[in-house]
Amino acid sequence: MIKVGLIGYGYWGPNIARNFNAHEEAEISIISDIDPEALSRAQKAFPKIETTADYKDITRSKEIDIVAIITPVSSHYEPAKDALGNGKHVFVEKPFTATVKEAEDLIELAEKKSLQIMVDHTFLFTGGVKKIKELIDNNTLGDLYYYDSTRVNLGLFQHDINVIWDLAPHDLSIMNYVIKDQPTAITANGVDHFGRGIEDVAYVTVYFDNNLIAHFNVNWLSPVKIRNTLLGGTNKMLVWNDLEPDEKIRIYDKGVDIKNKKGVYDLLVDYRSGDMWAPKVDKTEALKIETEYFIECINDKKRPVNDGSAGLDVVRILEATNESIKNNGKMVRL
Amino acid sequence: MIKVGLIGYGYWGPNIARNFNAHEEAEISIISDIDPEALSRAQKAFPKIETTADYKDITRSKEIDIVAIITPVSSHYEPAKDALGNGKHVFVEKPFTATVKEAEDLIELAEKKSLQIMVDHTFLFTGGVKKIKELIDNNTLGDLYYYDSTRVNLGLFQHDINVIWDLAPHDLSIMNYVIKDQPTAITANGVDHFGRGIEDVAYVTVYFDNNLIAHFNVNWLSPVKIRNTLLGGTNKMLVWNDLEPDEKIRIYDKGVDIKNKKGVYDLLVDYRSGDMWAPKVDKTEALKIETEYFIECINDKKRPVNDGSAGLDVVRILEATNESIKNNGKMVRL
Amino acid sequence: MIKVGLIGYGYWGPNIARNFNAHEEAEISIISDIDPEALSRAQKAFPKIETTADYKDITRSKEIDIVAIITPVSSHYEPAKDALGNGKHVFVEKPFTATVKEAEDLIELAEKKSLQIMVDHTFLFTGGVKKIKELIDNNTLGDLYYYDSTRVNLGLFQHDINVIWDLAPHDLSIMNYVIKDQPTAITANGVDHFGRGIEDVAYVTVYFDNNLIAHFNVNWLSPVKIRNTLLGGTNKMLVWNDLEPDEKIRIYDKGVDIKNKKGVYDLLVDYRSGDMWAPKVDKTEALKIETEYFIECINDKKRPVNDGSAGLDVVRILEATNESIKNNGKMVRL
Amino acid sequence: MIKVGLIGYGYWGPNIARNFNAHEEAEISIISDIDPEALSRAQKAFPKIETTADYKDITRSKEIDIVAIITPVSSHYEPAKDALGNGKHVFVEKPFTATVKEAEDLIELAEKKSLQIMVDHTFLFTGGVKKIKELIDNNTLGDLYYYDSTRVNLGLFQHDINVIWDLAPHDLSIMNYVIKDQPTAITANGVDHFGRGIEDVAYVTVYFDNNLIAHFNVNWLSPVKIRNTLLGGTNKMLVWNDLEPDEKIRIYDKGVDIKNKKGVYDLLVDYRSGDMWAPKVDKTEALKIETEYFIECINDKKRPVNDGSAGLDVVRILEATNESIKNNGKMVRL
Repeated sequence: MIKVGLIGYGYWGPNIARNFNAHEEAEISIISDIDPEALSRAQKAFPKIETTADYKDITRSKEIDIVAIITPVSSHYEPAKDALGNGKHVFVEKPFTATVKEAEDLIELAEKKSLQIMVDHTFLFTGGVKKIKELIDNNTLGDLYYYDSTRVNLGLFQHDINVIWDLAPHDLSIMNYVIKDQPTAITANGVDHFGRGIEDVAYVTVYFDNNLIAHFNVNWLSPVKIRNTLLGGTNKMLVWNDLEPDEKIRIYDKGVDIKNKKGVYDLLVDYRSGDMWAPKVDKTEALKIETEYFIECINDKKRPVNDGSAGLDVVRILEATNESIKNNGKMVRL
Repeated sequence: MIKVGLIGYGYWGPNIARNFNAHEEAEISIISDIDPEALSRAQKAFPKIETTADYKDITRSKEIDIVAIITPVSSHYEPAKDALGNGKHVFVEKPFTATVKEAEDLIELAEKKSLQIMVDHTFLFTGGVKKIKELIDNNTLGDLYYYDSTRVNLGLFQHDINVIWDLAPHDLSIMNYVIKDQPTAITANGVDHFGRGIEDVAYVTVYFDNNLIAHFNVNWLSPVKIRNTLLGGTNKMLVWNDLEPDEKIRIYDKGVDIKNKKGVYDLLVDYRSGDMWAPKVDKTEALKIETEYFIECINDKKRPVNDGSAGLDVVRILEATNESIKNNGKMVRL
Repeated sequence: MIKVGLIGYGYWGPNIARNFNAHEEAEISIISDIDPEALSRAQKAFPKIETTADYKDITRSKEIDIVAIITPVSSHYEPAKDALGNGKHVFVEKPFTATVKEAEDLIELAEKKSLQIMVDHTFLFTGGVKKIKELIDNNTLGDLYYYDSTRVNLGLFQHDINVIWDLAPHDLSIMNYVIKDQPTAITANGVDHFGRGIEDVAYVTVYFDNNLIAHFNVNWLSPVKIRNTLLGGTNKMLVWNDLEPDEKIRIYDKGVDIKNKKGVYDLLVDYRSGDMWAPKVDKTEALKIETEYFIECINDKKRPVNDGSAGLDVVRILEATNESIKNNGKMVRL
Repeated sequence: MIKVGLIGYGYWGPNIARNFNAHEEAEISIISDIDPEALSRAQKAFPKIETTADYKDITRSKEIDIVAIITPVSSHYEPAKDALGNGKHVFVEKPFTATVKEAEDLIELAEKKSLQIMVDHTFLFTGGVKKIKELIDNNTLGDLYYYDSTRVNLGLFQHDINVIWDLAPHDLSIMNYVIKDQPTAITANGVDHFGRGIEDVAYVTVYFDNNLIAHFNVNWLSPVKIRNTLLGGTNKMLVWNDLEPDEKIRIYDKGVDIKNKKGVYDLLVDYRSGDMWAPKVDKTEALKIETEYFIECINDKKRPVNDGSAGLDVVRILEATNESIKNNGKMVRL
């Protein structure tokens, strides 16, 4: 039986705990949190576990195999380092770390110790994202023109990170997962409306070679919740509306062919507008698949797709957005 | 009877002609186009008018009072200048001109001649936009946090202007109309996918003082048509979905209050989430109201809200986006 | 040139006139209406036509080939009879007639005179309905379980017919067109809220052999407009939302297989839930196709699908609903 | 501490158990089910409880105060009778009983023993239904014209009851709750597509005095899930879409005034079309409120609104639909 210790039993921790515990080869055996109320909730939900206020009781425990770190990003590095240093595999909430440097350190340490890091890019394990990846991999969409995501809602304001660090890791991890090309540069614009030095409305543009462009609209001050991603390709176009209960993915047989005859005024544009198709999408809870996959990666000593390196790729873009916002939207090379 | 001469009977010209002609004090009396087929369609729709291939037959005609110029933007300046020079009022399609310089010239000429210029910012005359203006003017929304518009669809690719010049003038003219503050700077990012030097996907961010931020997502390659604008204010928040047949404007009694107790970790955020309200919105055809208003402005010698100066404000931002895109999204001061 | 005389230039008449007039082999040459204002509108729209207050100037005119009767249903029979009696083909608004008897008379007269009757079941010529027919004819849907339509909105209250006679002819004509089986019986329930003896909310159920059932929810007092039809089949299920601008028809790969093992408590139900697919649907104006088809039927002496007999089938059901409502929803055999 | 025994731990039972158990004055102490797998799930979820295959271990237990019966309707009567006979309060799944006779028996027995019956009409405790009741009670809607519900989806086919008994109890209990008038008669039409003698598509019309009409469209064979209720009133009209995550209730300032001048052809209809308003609706889990309310009713010896009598009112209508369907939609007086 693989023993899992969990650090941080706030909003998301209970879901991680529940899913590891439901795995037939794993069980939650100890949970830490600095908030005694959180611990008492944990104890009630999992009567057989130990609880502690000190995460080192987990990272240094003899019996623990996996340390799951579900704390604010500023508290990822220390416990992760301690866990890896003590021979534990690490499952860590997104974004991976607060800086590129931290991520690189942890990756190096895990390498040296032959341990696994999994960054909780949960969305990669949803039926929707798996379908998008499949449609890109099998060339249904063709070459991509753009990847355009709107992820806005009211709250939840974070204390320590801005709206980009809070919401964009979802999109960035998905973008990196489904698009093979490497992003080359970014720009970011954003505003802080409450004088905290923490942007609550922001826009990120990501450049690739080959004229692929990605854009992320993230906003904590929207009256409506929107989770909408458009992908335009040379063959087909796709809309992913994650709030749709059933048809989350819609594929449009739409496109455009441009033929220059002699000059710009002779431009001929053919618009293609055909059927729409909403493939069935797997509805299994993503976190169940992700935790099972982590156990499998550990057992089979295989590297997860959402390993430390995937986490670092996201942090590198996030760090670049800090610099771009500070410089009025200046393009920052990656 | 006010005589109107129309230059350019393409996609939009027929609507302008129909509305001027329906006015009881005005009538279309001559239409020019370089395309004989367009003229034959015009003749069929308005059997009593003259038609001509040479716009100067209009701008220099003795009997014409208003010249309506409904041509591509690169063909606005010359006929407008000729019309004003010959004592005619000018109604001109948006965007007003291809450059700030052209706009300034025309405004100066109109001033000197005491003639009116109206730029066809049609949206200002829709029930939706009038309602938004009313809700901002009477402080229903409170101070604005942001203005965020998505205006995407498949096509129509323009030959001579990019997607910003094509689609954003709608949003920019609305933004300038409903927001009293002046924009201070912009950034723009965009990509040309067809090697024409004409961006088909672009993002524009507009900065104001007081942390108000505006953002425009314009795209000719979207499989779905979206016309969605979010406005966040300190009192209320608003969503304008122009594709809704009935409830185009929705006002949300939603908001956030942030109270810092002692430090960032003591942050208290109160979320307010109350009723939603969709006020009835006037459905009169905007172009009918706009053309009537132009006749009224001419009769009463009053300056329209969508005068040359309003047109120039939009062109100034558009020109700045050219510079920003060329410089990788660099912020350009206005 | 085929000459068309039009009786009734109210709400719908102008569309009929415009479409016949746009046909290259036909032209509107005379329009009658008892309302002088209607005639003056007609004259303005079609400057070359004659107008008259007396429809007999049309039905008895020497030069007229087709008489289009676009009046309330109580005024269909007399002019249609006069037109046929005088050798004219008849295009008549739906519902065909006020009684089965009238419909049978007109059909007999047309037979005797070898003249064509077309009943304006416009919906049969929409892309949506043609697609539904195609999907049933090629067995995509399989055997039908049910046909269920909701057609509700606020107003327009009719003076002389109830909401069933006003709204259901659309659905009934479509049902008869796409379903090969004959309806065998109906029930109808409805209420008159304004003491006029005219139901404004009503429900019609139509029975077929083979357990196919159809249902029509028609309502003049709904705050929202709904035009939604569900069709369940053994192979696929379909939703037709006529208010959708683009994906009007959605086909669901959903279904159910029931296997009785030994008894009711051993019942095994397999639910199939696969992809959804929205085929492209022709957007040509239905009335254009319908009027062209009438000219074609006349030229080729072929019977239209929406002939007098199709009109009679609808009137027969409508007449039965009168009887059923009067008898508290009693089933009436057709 | 109030001890609750639960009979039937299938699909819905776990929710009942969880909510009673979460109450600070109550706890689940024993659960019965004929399926051993259900019992093992129950034991896992509530480690401290007893389990049994024989419901009489619950109904005859000394320590049990409330018996919750969450079984198919055919298995309500016997355990309920046994529970009441042994002095226990009864919480019973809807529909209350399989026949009017059974319901009357149980009500009589509860009266005699001064015990409470609560029928699980969960919807009465949702924010949406409470808001509708409030809007009717305070005359916001005015006098009602109609109540029109569509409740369709794919499956779940029941073994022992038809689609009316399965889905309509929700609507009927809501209708009875929000409308003060008594229904006077019903008609029902339906079809069984699988030769089981169990209708899977059905339509119920309910008549009231004062021309109020209610209609229920229930269907197990719909490709899409619809939960839509329209209520038309003389003052306002309301749409309740229970699938909307946020604006479940929309109130339309729409209506119609009919003025007969002299006769039917002089009919004047005024349509009123004003604002729409979506009031905030309480999102607390209905079952939490309902179970707390039952404890409160028991403690305070007050009769719940969803008592046996409310359950009987629904069963009486259901029984009438059986008769109407058997007689081809004949009206059945209540």
